[in-house]
Order: sequence, then structure tokens, then C-alpha cells
Amino acid sequence: MPLRLDSAQPDFEQRFVDLLGAKRESSKDVNDVVAGIIADVRARGDEAVVELTNKFDRTSFTTADIAFTAEEIAAAAAEVPAHVRAALQTAHDRIKSHHEKQKPQDHVYTDALGVTLGSRWTAVDAVGIYVPGGLASYPSSVLMNAVPARVAGVSRIAMAVPTPDGEINPTVLAAAQIAGITEIYRIGGAQAVAALAYGTATIPRVDKVTGPGNAYVATAKRQVFGQVGIDMIAGPSEVLVIADSSANPAWVAADLIAQAEHGAGAQSILVTTDPRLADAVEAEMDRQLSLLPKQAIARQGWNELGAIITVTSLDQAADLANRIASEHVEIATDDPQALVPKIRHAGAIFLGHHTPEAIGDYVGGSNHVLPTARSARFASGLGVLDFMKRTSILGCTPFSLAALAEPAVTIAGVEDLDGHGRSISIRLNR
Amino acid sequence: MPLRLDSAQPDFEQRFVDLLGAKRESSKDVNDVVAGIIADVRARGDEAVVELTNKFDRTSFTTADIAFTAEEIAAAAAEVPAHVRAALQTAHDRIKSHHEKQKPQDHVYTDALGVTLGSRWTAVDAVGIYVPGGLASYPSSVLMNAVPARVAGVSRIAMAVPTPDGEINPTVLAAAQIAGITEIYRIGGAQAVAALAYGTATIPRVDKVTGPGNAYVATAKRQVFGQVGIDMIAGPSEVLVIADSSANPAWVAADLIAQAEHGAGAQSILVTTDPRLADAVEAEMDRQLSLLPKQAIARQGWNELGAIITVTSLDQAADLANRIASEHVEIATDDPQALVPKIRHAGAIFLGHHTPEAIGDYVGGSNHVLPTARSARFASGLGVLDFMKRTSILGCTPFSLAALAEPAVTIAGVEDLDGHGRSISIRLNR
Repeated sequence: MPLRLDSAQPDFEQRFVDLLGAKRESSKDVNDVVAGIIADVRARGDEAVVELTNKFDRTSFTTADIAFTAEEIAAAAAEVPAHVRAALQTAHDRIKSHHEKQKPQDHVYTDALGVTLGSRWTAVDAVGIYVPGGLASYPSSVLMNAVPARVAGVSRIAMAVPTPDGEINPTVLAAAQIAGITEIYRIGGAQAVAALAYGTATIPRVDKVTGPGNAYVATAKRQVFGQVGIDMIAGPSEVLVIADSSANPAWVAADLIAQAEHGAGAQSILVTTDPRLADAVEAEMDRQLSLLPKQAIARQGWNELGAIITVTSLDQAADLANRIASEHVEIATDDPQALVPKIRHAGAIFLGHHTPEAIGDYVGGSNHVLPTARSARFASGLGVLDFMKRTSILGCTPFSLAALAEPAVTIAGVEDLDGHGRSISIRLNR
Repeated sequence: MPLRLDSAQPDFEQRFVDLLGAKRESSKDVNDVVAGIIADVRARGDEAVVELTNKFDRTSFTTADIAFTAEEIAAAAAEVPAHVRAALQTAHDRIKSHHEKQKPQDHVYTDALGVTLGSRWTAVDAVGIYVPGGLASYPSSVLMNAVPARVAGVSRIAMAVPTPDGEINPTVLAAAQIAGITEIYRIGGAQAVAALAYGTATIPRVDKVTGPGNAYVATAKRQVFGQVGIDMIAGPSEVLVIADSSANPAWVAADLIAQAEHGAGAQSILVTTDPRLADAVEAEMDRQLSLLPKQAIARQGWNELGAIITVTSLDQAADLANRIASEHVEIATDDPQALVPKIRHAGAIFLGHHTPEAIGDYVGGSNHVLPTARSARFASGLGVLDFMKRTSILGCTPFSLAALAEPAVTIAGVEDLDGHGRSISIRLNR
């Protein structure tokens, strides 16, 4: 049974804190293993990458086969039915159109003293996208990572996607093809992240690595951070549905199930002002779960990590939402916009009864790579800015330098950095 | 002697690659020590923080004294001379004015299908700023971290600044006062980062930790990343001066020295089209270094890590600059703007002969927290966006949901996520 909480219960605060702190991920300590793998790849390059991938993926390719050939990509993509290809193209086009609106503007101006100040944005040169093999090998994730990079202007995108037991996911390669990715490696795990970050004879190194992965991949990203940029460390997915009496219990249940079917720590929470809706959703969950092909996973997730919380007002629901800082927040009310300003911490907000979270996973146009595990308190979903960087511009005239010299030399003095002060004062005595 | 390279030398490429790869930081492996400290702080809270800080800083305060009192802050700040305070106020006001221009705009729109899409920016609730004790305890860094956070709208800023041997840096506390910071803790090291990230009885946890620090602090930030957000992991400072024959060798030398005086791996590189300027700068370095109070540090840095590279054109200089991806790039030519578009990777660009990098350290208005160690390939300087996060907004009407249902359900199908598809299709059969 999922947790049932009522904000009127005397022990509500403690039980809610326990819910927030519930351990959802087995945080296997793989630091040392991963450090060893990275060192090995740095020392032995391709050899190490191939050896380790073959070992973990039960494959037997050679260094000559690290990269998929154009023919292999075309052949795999050709296996994908036309309607699937069309769906991916629709997703691609909508994601592209939305992300184009995220492109930042340069802004350089001259202030009253005559100082030129500004920000200039440029794209990262080369990005590596990690795509997991096996069950969590999602073509939609290829698009969600590659399209913002392309829109940012990244000129080189390399993709790593392992082929466990030699199995290639044709839909993933079709998505790569639609996104214009031609550089694809059949490697995985920490060794793939190391190869992308440090480069090998076959794989030129990139500047940033993004994409989801298991504990080894996540730990490798953490360890190569600094050598390259990384996106967030993604945890299990989660949804918070805020609903009032206007919500349809069957629809709410379907959305909670969609999240729970990810398994592996995924969490679905309903917060509602309507105790009858809470009961109806719980009954619906049971009914709909029994119809789901993968019901075992979803049912286990819902029973272990799911929660239904009844509250006295939508304002209270928003307060709890801010404490949960969920990856996805659905507002299943007739006037969702009224609640939006009150929800400060959320990866994405889905408005009203007709916006199931799943629409955002695929074709809404917004990105599905979103901050998990309460990190929406400080992090954003993936976007164009993640594939660009800002260079500051500063320019003084002789006049403005003279005007700013005194305070600058003073601060340099208290910081005991005389050379800093002298680099300014030497210019004043022309 | 600093390295002298000439792009016409037959072995130039190899020697330049060696320069790029020069080890500038002793990367002490303190992973296990730091992991132990973080675990200790999580288990024992204030007790551990105080015990560890007292041990490393040779202090003897108690848990009751973790936070500076308002009186202590006022008393320390009162020691700061009026002209220093005025200089810090000028710096504060210019940093604030520039960073206000970085505030992002929300953007929500409705597309042709009737889908509501957008981005909404909100501030991080609570930020912890780490300020090193001892030699690298810089009031300017307090401003460079705190002001963008304030401009972003962060409501709570907590600062940790250790007091090695009990010594308080009054100018740091004055800078904190000017930035409106009242929550200040006399703690340092990995234990301070852990306390900020996880919270203790005295120190409520924050959502993001920023600020420079030694190897222990940097490693702690890396380890708490995910629990909280962090800024970059800063390495030794660096400057690249691009100069042609219009440059003043004495001014160029002064700027190279300003960087070298940071010591601890700081690197100064001159790239010039004029061999005579190269010679003149080298001679000037020697002359000016002998006049510097801290000449030993600067001379050692210049001799061990400095480089003068002669090239045949400013275009070639820009190419090398992109490979170096320096924290600071000065363009010491008469027409610096002409070169700006060619420099794609730089933390900050300083325009022309009258913009020594040091002006940007203090009062230019741009941020001095910038990407080091070639990370300008993928990272930006600190700014307002680092203290905000973007929430995606997505809203469908019944019509737009129906229009998008088919491709979404198709992709859910190939990803074997039936629950996702059902959460969409259930809404179509009203």
C-alpha cells in the first residue's frame, strides 16, 4: 500500500519529513572501481575501452569496430517502421522549435563612465552524449540531449551507446539519424565516459558529456567533471500531482502509474484537497495497474514509494510541492495558472487536466531531462544554455581606467596583491 | 626562465601541446579523507564541525560560537579604514549594476497547436558562500559571490570563513556587511562545506554552495554535488595576453606579473606577433619583478609556468587562444574588437591597452569568478543564472493533446512504457 498522509494528522510533519528522506536509490559506492577504469582508459585508450565494454556487455568487438559505420547506422535505422520514424521526426521538430526560443542574446553596452561591459555567448565545440543500452535505451533521450546541443550551435556531437549481448537498438540509431548524429560508438559504462572526456586514438575527446546512465556512468561523470563539463547526475524519476475535486481520478491514476512504471526508485505522489478524490484515485490505481503489461514493476514502485496526501487548501499543496521540489509537477485543477506562481521549485510544471506528464516526455517540445531528487531547488532541466558558455567582455578607456583606479588599487592593497595594483597604476603615468 | 616558443619552430606543435598539458596543480588525492569528514559531519553535526575546524585551524571555539554575532561583525568591520570601505562599496555597486542586466526573462507562449510552452526563472532559496581563511581570504570574492546571488533574489545567504589561529579578516567581514550578509560562521574546510550542504543544529542547510577553496574544499564540493548545487571547481588563475607591436611592454609585463603573483600554479602567457615586443616584455618582467614586495612567488611562477609565444598573425594568436581557453584573455592591440569574434573560448576578454585584467578583479563590474584550467571550453563565469533555476511550463488543450497523442503514444510504445501511452490515450475517450 502506498503511504496515506493527512495534513491534519498530529504526526504529519514527521511523516512528511520521513517521506522526503526516503531512500530511493541504492547508492552503491563504485568510486574506486570507476577511478580505476578511468585511469585504465587514460593509460591504454581504445584497448581498455574495448576490453572493458566487451567484458561488461558480453560482446566481442575489436578496436576497429568501436565506431558504427554509416552503413550500420543506415541499416539499423531502416528497420524502424515509418510511423515510428514519423513520430520521432515530430518530436524532433517540436523540441527544436521550442529550444530555439531559449537561445540567449549577447549584450554589450557602455556605462556612464565609458566602460564597455557585456556578455557574449558561444557554443561548446564538441559534446558527447551517453545513451544507456538495454531497457533504458530511449530514442526520446537521444533527441532531448542532441537537439538543444544542435540548436546551441555545437558542431560535433559524439554518441556512445553500448550494445549489451550485441543487441543494437534500431530506434535509438534512427533518433540519432534524425538528430543528425553520425559519430556513434558501441561503448558503454564508465569506460565510455572516460573515452569521451579524455579521448583515445579512435575517439577525439569532447568538451562536455551529457546523458543518463547507471551508477558507474554517473560516478564517472562526477569524476571527470572539470576535465569536461557534465549535465546533472540524474536520479530516479518522480511526479507530484496536485489535484482538487475537479480532477478525474482515472486520469490522475494513469499519470501516477506512468511514473511508477519506470521502476528503480521512481516515485509518484498525489497531493489533493479532496479526500474523496484520494480514495477514488487509490481504487483506480488498483484497477488500472491490473491492466498494465508491466504491472509488477509499477505496483511495487507505487506500494513502496507512492504517497497520497490530503491537505486543506491548494496553498498548502504548493507549500508541500516546494518542499518536495519534484522533477514533474502536474496541476490537475480547472485554473492551474493560479497556482503556478506559488510553486517555486519544480523541474517542469504541467498545466491542467489535459496535460499528462508523458506528453512532455516526447512531443510537447520542452525537455524531459529534468532535475530529480529535490535538485529542482537549485538546478534546471537541460536546455540550450547547457551547451553554450558566456564570456565576459570588459573594456576601459583611459578616462574610465583613471576613474576606477583608486578603489581598485585600494582593494588590491588590502588583498596584499601589489602586482595587481601596479598593473593599474603603471598605466596612469603616461 | 619562462618558456619561449615561436610558431615557426619545427617542433612548435609538440612544445605547445606540452605547455597545454603542463601540470599546474598538485592534485592531492584527498577523496577518502573528505568522505570521512562529510560522514562525520552528517553523523555528529556541530560537534564534528567545531572539532575538525579547531584541529585544522588551531582554534578553540565551541559550538556556541560557530556563528559570528552581530556585534563581532560590526566590531571587525569598524576596524576597516573609510577609504577601503568606500572602495568596496564602489566595487559592490558596479558589480550589482552589471549583474542586474543578467537577470533572465520568463518566456511563456502558445504555439500554433494551442500548446502553452515556456520557461520560468526563480531564485535558489538559500546559498552558502565559502571564503577561505588566511592568505587567499579576499573581500572581493565575497562581493563576487554574494552580489549575483542577491541580484538573483536569493533570500538567505550564509557565509563560512575560517579564522586560522583565531585571526579574523576584518575586510572580509566588511565586504559581507556591504553585501548584506548577516549569517556568518567561523568554520572552514571540508567540514564547512558538509555543514552547509547537510545542515547541523546551528547551521540550516543551504541549496547551493559556491566559492573557492583548497583541495579539501574543492573535493568536498565535488562530493556534495547533487545534494546541493555547486559552482565550478576553481583551479589556479591564468592570463593570456595577446599583443601586437602597438602594445606597451611595461604594461604587458605588469599584467603578466599580476597573474604570476597569485603563486600556486598561476600561469601567465604572452602571445605576440612582434618578436621585439617579446624581448622587451621579457626584459621588463625582470626589471618590474625586482621591484615587487612578493617577487619570490611571482618570479617562481613566471619562470616555471610562464611562456612567451611569437606568432605570425593575430589570427594565429586567436587560434592558440582557443586551444588554451584561458580564464582571462587580454587583447593589447589598437583594435581589440576586431579580434573578439575569433576568440571562442575565454572566461573573460579585456579590451585594449587600458584594460588591465586587475580592473576586472575588483571594480569593472563583471565577475572575477571565471573558468580556469581550460574549462572555458564548456563553462562560464559566475553570474546571476547560477543562483536561479528554470522551470519548464507545458500546457495542452483537449485539441492539442489530441493532435499530439499519436506520435507520443507511438514513442511510448517503442520505449516499452505502456503506462505512459495510456496516460495520454485515457484522456481521448471522454
